[in-house]
Amino acid sequence: MLTSRLAQDPALAPLVPRLAFALEIDRLKGVERRTWLADGSRRENSAEHSWHIATLALVLADLAPPGTDVDRVVRMLLVHDLVEIDAGDTFAFDAVGLTDRDARERLAADRLYALIPGGERLRALWEEFDAGETPDARYANALDRLAPLLLNLATEGGTWREHGVQRSAVRRRMAPIASGLAAIWPAVQAAIDDAVDAGWVGPD
Amino acid sequence: MLTSRLAQDPALAPLVPRLAFALEIDRLKGVERRTWLADGSRRENSAEHSWHIATLALVLADLAPPGTDVDRVVRMLLVHDLVEIDAGDTFAFDAVGLTDRDARERLAADRLYALIPGGERLRALWEEFDAGETPDARYANALDRLAPLLLNLATEGGTWREHGVQRSAVRRRMAPIASGLAAIWPAVQAAIDDAVDAGWVGPD
Ligand SMILES: [Ca+2]
Repeated sequence: MLTSRLAQDPALAPLVPRLAFALEIDRLKGVERRTWLADGSRRENSAEHSWHIATLALVLADLAPPGTDVDRVVRMLLVHDLVEIDAGDTFAFDAVGLTDRDARERLAADRLYALIPGGERLRALWEEFDAGETPDARYANALDRLAPLLLNLATEGGTWREHGVQRSAVRRRMAPIASGLAAIWPAVQAAIDDAVDAGWVGPD
Repeated sequence: MLTSRLAQDPALAPLVPRLAFALEIDRLKGVERRTWLADGSRRENSAEHSWHIATLALVLADLAPPGTDVDRVVRMLLVHDLVEIDAGDTFAFDAVGLTDRDARERLAADRLYALIPGGERLRALWEEFDAGETPDARYANALDRLAPLLLNLATEGGTWREHGVQRSAVRRRMAPIASGLAAIWPAVQAAIDDAVDAGWVGPD
């Protein structure tokens, strides 16, 4: 796509890698997740999911752990799934896919973040998210779990029901909310119990 | 969806508006824009578009006008299209739709931003974006124009070709890039001229 005048003009050439990267990341819109939209019309993709949780980081900012830098969390969430452009989305309850996910995502990061100047700063945010140890990463991970929980509740069990998931597995999956969004944790536990009562989640 | 334990527990009830809002904004994923994805497989929606340009705000941060607060721009871009949940997307070259767009969007903002505590801060960001007068809003608007330009180039003219758009109209549409992302403006003009040469944009 990078048109001829653009590629040939030495004054414009330095822009080419960044504009090419802007199109490269468009591919995240084509990475399908398992989660259904709230209206049940289709599954969501990783780009719109990233928008959703970055926006939730703003909406729930006053519930973030003390010391959280919400703007940093937003940046982290915008890039947290970029590696899926190469590695695809790995379903949370897919034990096999999870075993080699790290290796696939690391290869993807090696390629993607080398494409632009300053890519290593974005990569560092993704690595921090993935480690999940800083306050910022804890808040970010909590939001990344909360959104599919809400969507599963909105779609009468969604992927939980599709895959026959049990209460203990949902609780484990949602555990990052206990530390990253503690104010919401009792509500999450109540919602999971409601989902069991409704038959959307197994009662183990 | 807001499950019975959650709605009935007075300790959890204050969370309900925020969790309901989190599901309300999921509807932005269902608002279709005219622009095609870079791979031409389908048109994009406003949620993934918002993700795309918020991420571009990070990737192109070093080209932002002096004094730009990039984190503020990111926040602005995350919410800039929320009013489309009620008002829909108005195509840039649709003269009729544009006449009442402001009124429709203002009504949408009245409803949406009243749903959550702190909504007026998010609304102020949207209004600043819409006015396009501050340095932050200028950078934000430039990104909002750049992304569809790149997607139209990637899809051999995309919506320009579909609607027989002329060079002068594309230039006018892209004008916010001249002030908000001046370093890229010569590249944009070159790309538009290339698009005319390729027959994707009319030559007027
Ligand atoms: Ca827009």
